[in-house]
Amino acid sequence: KHRKGVNFSDRGMTLEQKINESNKYYLMEEIAVVHKKPTPIQIVKVDYPKRSKAVIREAYFRQASTTDYNGVYKGYYLDFEAKETRNKTNFPLKNFHDHQIFHLDECLKQQGICFTIIRFASLERYFVTPASFVIHAYREKDKSSMTLKEIESHSYEIKSGFRPTLPYLEAVDKLIADRKSE
Amino acid sequence: KHRKGVNFSDRGMTLEQKINESNKYYLMEEIAVVHKKPTPIQIVKVDYPKRSKAVIREAYFRQASTTDYNGVYKGYYLDFEAKETRNKTNFPLKNFHDHQIFHLDECLKQQGICFTIIRFASLERYFVTPASFVIHAYREKDKSSMTLKEIESHSYEIKSGFRPTLPYLEAVDKLIADRKSE
Ligand SMILES: [Mg+2]
Ligand SMILES: [Mg+2]
Repeated sequence: KHRKGVNFSDRGMTLEQKINESNKYYLMEEIAVVHKKPTPIQIVKVDYPKRSKAVIREAYFRQASTTDYNGVYKGYYLDFEAKETRNKTNFPLKNFHDHQIFHLDECLKQQGICFTIIRFASLERYFVTPASFVIHAYREKDKSSMTLKEIESHSYEIKSGFRPTLPYLEAVDKLIADRKSE
Repeated sequence: KHRKGVNFSDRGMTLEQKINESNKYYLMEEIAVVHKKPTPIQIVKVDYPKRSKAVIREAYFRQASTTDYNGVYKGYYLDFEAKETRNKTNFPLKNFHDHQIFHLDECLKQQGICFTIIRFASLERYFVTPASFVIHAYREKDKSSMTLKEIESHSYEIKSGFRPTLPYLEAVDKLIADRKSE
């Protein structure tokens, strides 16, 4: 593996790295503008050394209030959360946080295109699942996971490739078409 | 004025504080979902003390690649940058950074609703200006500022008030109407 700036091989890339690479490609080709949101940090102490850049010396992780990614594509607002599991037959719903589900729901009410990208790492399979299904599953009483079968039947599967590494907008096109035919 | 978890007076609030308050109101009322992007930080060293939360001990500010705010409103993607000046007759274009102008331009190409909110602090006046005008001014040769007159004639002025503190979506409605009539 030789990497510099961009990965030569997608082996060993995390889901987030693949999405970030894909977003760079989409931006460069002017196909879409999607960015990962920075982790929110509460900064307490900063040193300003002479002749050198500011150093944060005390800071804490804060609770995010949104999902990982959002952006714009053909006039549509996109919002999504990316998650991985090593499980082979189901995705545990505890991997989602309340604030992520709440945020996806709020964005849906504003007619955003909202979804999750779930990677089954052991199977090397990727699913783009509409947020409406995930929210419903998350809120269902006594339901602790979505089975692979459920995910298969409610999602668009995408294949990891090259340029972009993870062509998730193909699935987004289908979500947009589904919405139009509703 | 008595609020809870909110500033008691809007005197002394910065532009960003006013926008953040407004966004809370818009979210609570399910009018729009707009969040400020966290400052991107490169984390180098984290301590994990026993029985207490993780402390970031060395980190650096990174260059942002987007504007301050984005979100979704009635299906529209919103993207904007907020800026203040104490000047009384013009707004210096050097207050914008290349990456902000680039980002606004990329989002415009994807049909986002893109704009700036400029506060003339000494005048207590607020303007919502379409990104297309700001980008054009920024790229004009030998132009170092936008005059107040130019801003007045290319913007929708908004008034600071109560619930929301800064009702910028009123101006956004006009930008959307303008786009439709183009
Ligand atoms: Mg994630
Ligand atoms: Mg700003």
